[in-house]
Amino acid sequence: MAATQEVTNLQTLARKLRIHSLRATSEAGSGHPTSCLSAADLVSALFFHAMRFDPKNPVHPHNDRFVLSKGHAAPVLYAALAEAGVWPVERLLTLRNLTSDLEGHPTPRIPWVGAATGSLGQGLSVGVGMALNGKYLEKSDYRVYVLMGDGEIAEGSVWEAAALATHYRLENLIGIIDVNGLGQSQRTMYDHDTAVYHNRFAAFGWHTVTIDGHDISAIVAALDQAQSVKDRPTMIVARTLKGKGVSFLEDRDGWHGKPLKKGEELDKALSELPLNGSGAATKIASPPGVSLRSAPVPAPFTPPDYKLGEKVATRTAYGTALAKLGTSNPLIVALDGDTKNSTFAEKFLAAHKDRYFESFIAEQNMVGAAVGLAACGKIPFVSTFAAFLSRAFDHIRMAAISGVTIKYAGSHCGVSIGEDGPSQMGLEDIAMMRAIPHSTVLYPSDAVSTERLVAAEASLKGTTYLRTSRPATPVLYANNEEFPVGGSKVLRSSPTDQLTVVAAGVTLHEALSAHEILKAIGANVRVIDAYSVKPIDTKGIISAASQTRQRVLVVEDHYYDGGLGDAVLNAVATHGVQVHKLAVTEVPRSGKPEELLDAYGIGARRIVEKVKSLIGN
Amino acid sequence: MAATQEVTNLQTLARKLRIHSLRATSEAGSGHPTSCLSAADLVSALFFHAMRFDPKNPVHPHNDRFVLSKGHAAPVLYAALAEAGVWPVERLLTLRNLTSDLEGHPTPRIPWVGAATGSLGQGLSVGVGMALNGKYLEKSDYRVYVLMGDGEIAEGSVWEAAALATHYRLENLIGIIDVNGLGQSQRTMYDHDTAVYHNRFAAFGWHTVTIDGHDISAIVAALDQAQSVKDRPTMIVARTLKGKGVSFLEDRDGWHGKPLKKGEELDKALSELPLNGSGAATKIASPPGVSLRSAPVPAPFTPPDYKLGEKVATRTAYGTALAKLGTSNPLIVALDGDTKNSTFAEKFLAAHKDRYFESFIAEQNMVGAAVGLAACGKIPFVSTFAAFLSRAFDHIRMAAISGVTIKYAGSHCGVSIGEDGPSQMGLEDIAMMRAIPHSTVLYPSDAVSTERLVAAEASLKGTTYLRTSRPATPVLYANNEEFPVGGSKVLRSSPTDQLTVVAAGVTLHEALSAHEILKAIGANVRVIDAYSVKPIDTKGIISAASQTRQRVLVVEDHYYDGGLGDAVLNAVATHGVQVHKLAVTEVPRSGKPEELLDAYGIGARRIVEKVKSLIGN
Repeated sequence: MAATQEVTNLQTLARKLRIHSLRATSEAGSGHPTSCLSAADLVSALFFHAMRFDPKNPVHPHNDRFVLSKGHAAPVLYAALAEAGVWPVERLLTLRNLTSDLEGHPTPRIPWVGAATGSLGQGLSVGVGMALNGKYLEKSDYRVYVLMGDGEIAEGSVWEAAALATHYRLENLIGIIDVNGLGQSQRTMYDHDTAVYHNRFAAFGWHTVTIDGHDISAIVAALDQAQSVKDRPTMIVARTLKGKGVSFLEDRDGWHGKPLKKGEELDKALSELPLNGSGAATKIASPPGVSLRSAPVPAPFTPPDYKLGEKVATRTAYGTALAKLGTSNPLIVALDGDTKNSTFAEKFLAAHKDRYFESFIAEQNMVGAAVGLAACGKIPFVSTFAAFLSRAFDHIRMAAISGVTIKYAGSHCGVSIGEDGPSQMGLEDIAMMRAIPHSTVLYPSDAVSTERLVAAEASLKGTTYLRTSRPATPVLYANNEEFPVGGSKVLRSSPTDQLTVVAAGVTLHEALSAHEILKAIGANVRVIDAYSVKPIDTKGIISAASQTRQRVLVVEDHYYDGGLGDAVLNAVATHGVQVHKLAVTEVPRSGKPEELLDAYGIGARRIVEKVKSLIGN
Repeated sequence: MAATQEVTNLQTLARKLRIHSLRATSEAGSGHPTSCLSAADLVSALFFHAMRFDPKNPVHPHNDRFVLSKGHAAPVLYAALAEAGVWPVERLLTLRNLTSDLEGHPTPRIPWVGAATGSLGQGLSVGVGMALNGKYLEKSDYRVYVLMGDGEIAEGSVWEAAALATHYRLENLIGIIDVNGLGQSQRTMYDHDTAVYHNRFAAFGWHTVTIDGHDISAIVAALDQAQSVKDRPTMIVARTLKGKGVSFLEDRDGWHGKPLKKGEELDKALSELPLNGSGAATKIASPPGVSLRSAPVPAPFTPPDYKLGEKVATRTAYGTALAKLGTSNPLIVALDGDTKNSTFAEKFLAAHKDRYFESFIAEQNMVGAAVGLAACGKIPFVSTFAAFLSRAFDHIRMAAISGVTIKYAGSHCGVSIGEDGPSQMGLEDIAMMRAIPHSTVLYPSDAVSTERLVAAEASLKGTTYLRTSRPATPVLYANNEEFPVGGSKVLRSSPTDQLTVVAAGVTLHEALSAHEILKAIGANVRVIDAYSVKPIDTKGIISAASQTRQRVLVVEDHYYDGGLGDAVLNAVATHGVQVHKLAVTEVPRSGKPEELLDAYGIGARRIVEKVKSLIGN
């Protein structure tokens, strides 16, 4: 039980959080004050009773972590940080200004925010990643607190996280659901029926407590209890009222995302929240001291060891490279969604068991957990079929907003996977990954370039995507060949080239075959390996085009729009180059890989046909 | 209890399904025979005891529906259809051939398959849509059976569907989990602990039964019981063995997705599956007769009714148009994910309550349910924030593979939403939707074009996406203006235009302002409204470019790669046009809409700057 004085202090602090949230949103003229008011008592008890952190050091490795999954309640978080002494309360009134880091939903422009939130249902996955880091990698006893809304519990990703959290016995993960019963447009599915949440999390193996979310003593008791639970995470189900503390807002529909008008409306609300004196003194528990460790210095990466012409799938080479990279850099971790024997992430597992997290068939949570790990300084490599990364697009998007560094690897791209059919073929993955700002998209065609590009990835920031293929293809490059990001390779070239073929992955091999056929009939074409799709080798492609009558043909195992072809179009956008594309233009069928490459117009025979029609041969 | 003779018959049929599955995958040289063997008894009891359907009429409206969520077990489905008399057993040996519709994973190239499966965890959502159609729209008493694997229960979309199914009290929805304990790369999270699945579905409000999935009597009893449950769906948790029936396959890891070798290996397996005589006679219950109804003839769409210059957000106009469209066509249904007061789907709800399905904050299930509704002949309009459609990209991808007709509407695109910040801004939605083969992407700039385009959508097939904006913008067009898909509008034009500006949505209004500023300094530019992003008006843009010195500037409120700019690049790819792009090149901040348009380089001032630099003014 909390002492009476502490309860009074926490109540006063909660009232201050309410006042700050109302003022800031009214000043901004937008925002979600009522969502802050329902959470204010919970946030007060979290920040000023339960959590242990150093307000002067947001990156203290043993700080407890806080994830505001219901990101629209950002003002109450900013208010808590102000009351903790992180910044002056005056700054709260800059909410949502272009020049302020206090954004409408929290982002890591503020160092206290590990991951951006605001796309609902993602916070618990981020928390899982942070808790995995604490329990298994850092062996730190920090705890991770995730505050969620009730509406977002409908998101499946929450249940993916719930399952993995018990699988990994994450007692350092404590969730709180702010059950205010009101969504954006109507009452939530369960209104104030807290038993629904309680029973579901219990069935998922969580220690579960239901409380009145406005009773500070009860909140404190639940948080204290959570800290003593062993071997499983805790979910606190808190019954609250949206708009709590202001009579004309409490539990009223129609107030979501609406600030009070400055003046009479705001004043009336504030008059219902009187402060006795100057408010409570805040006492925040400190994390244990830390002996500073220097960051590990990655060892050199062992060069590839293949023979020219040897047949190796790029997905296999990915696994080999990742295992080697894990040896050279201890910060690297890997996650895979029960496809590790196809993506070959299993090679990393075999070499670095302690840094591999099996994520089962739950791609959204896999990416969310990777965000949490990355926010703790790890370098996650996340793999599954390229097609199934689309399952996590919203999480990939939010990871980019978080600014974290994650490396995605998508295997089984394109029709060249063959008989399994279209559901398993990644055909829109390049479009998806190119759209992410500042992303890097790499698409190797042989084992040597795969290994080199995986090694290069390790030092890149932000979102990186490596696309690998299922079929075994011949090694094209010597082991000492270098593959700078943003480069390309000219593989076939003559002074009489009439056109440049740009390809990558399996279509590069098709282009090389086409080159031979065309050469035999006296039609020379240049062939370029565009292993770096983004950034694309603008200079190299423009130069090749200028030497081949300003004609380029792009061939890719991807849908027509958004892939390598569009990257090339951008590269030459202002250079008067004619760009032609061969790509997959319809939903493909099952069939043998070589049959499909031909049927969908991207095999050697079809390239020859197209080149002939373009050069008038 | 099933009679002894029926049990014997079903056992024999199950054995035949096993034999067919083994033979077909061995012949194909790929596939997932062991996943078929675990499910064979369940499928036998489903098809030849529980389900009521007309094997001669796959589109009988009262047929029970079957969704094979574990799509990799396709051969057992094909075998059941053969034994039901749908096609000769010989056809089973065409599995996975390019010329066969028996694909590696089921697709609606077979009329018995309502929706493509193979991306795991989507089948239950499809079943929810089909069950909503039966219970609420058709008032038919058909039932929907969904067979799932245990590994896929880790997918969050399963739990989204589980929650919505109880919310809508879908007693006509019956799920079966084939708990064989083995995933692709290792044991599942819960191996054979069936209580986990039982308790979780029970906590989600399902009637739940656990049985031995190889005990035909138990399966039949569970299915019979499920048919008498009222007001809630049933989940049958069936303990099975992967590879059941073949001693050297049963419950063995390492056999996922591997066929037996033809010859000795296959023969050895088949020798363990002897058939007594020619096998059982199949008796399939018929659905009730149906009085054929003619398809409703849509009434004419009432024309828009706006005043030129009046300020109306395109999202508001979307809601108005959708409500009107619902009046003209009774097949139209709408789904929204607790954003209906922002997307204005609430206008459809107000007008057509019975055809609106609130889907809460669970976008994957919302799209999956729309697939189920579309597979039953309805025309679903699915809306949420454009940003949150990314949550359902895998489902949108699979919907396209299913070939169903769904209309997506994404509101709150781009930085022009303002203060809520990047998590709420749809900035990669055009890239995502353009990538889908044969998709249509529409992006209106005013209320009149929005209404006209929504009306046009109704008759389009496949994937259609309409992008709407948050800010109110002036009406640009007269109410009788037509907007053919694939067209564009020239809004400003003079014989001395030095460049063509292509824009849509808020940037069109910025481009019009820029036009005025430029005109005042004697620099004329053409301005085009590219309301049809895909198909883009290739002819119109090439023509405009040819009249404006072959120079085009595309301005869009979208990330740089994959959007309208890339669509324009494709349009002019072989015409020697110089294409310049203004788009959002980094993760934006919170701020006022007009501030953000300027800060991220797509507002009027920035367009003027860019045009000046391009025309050397």
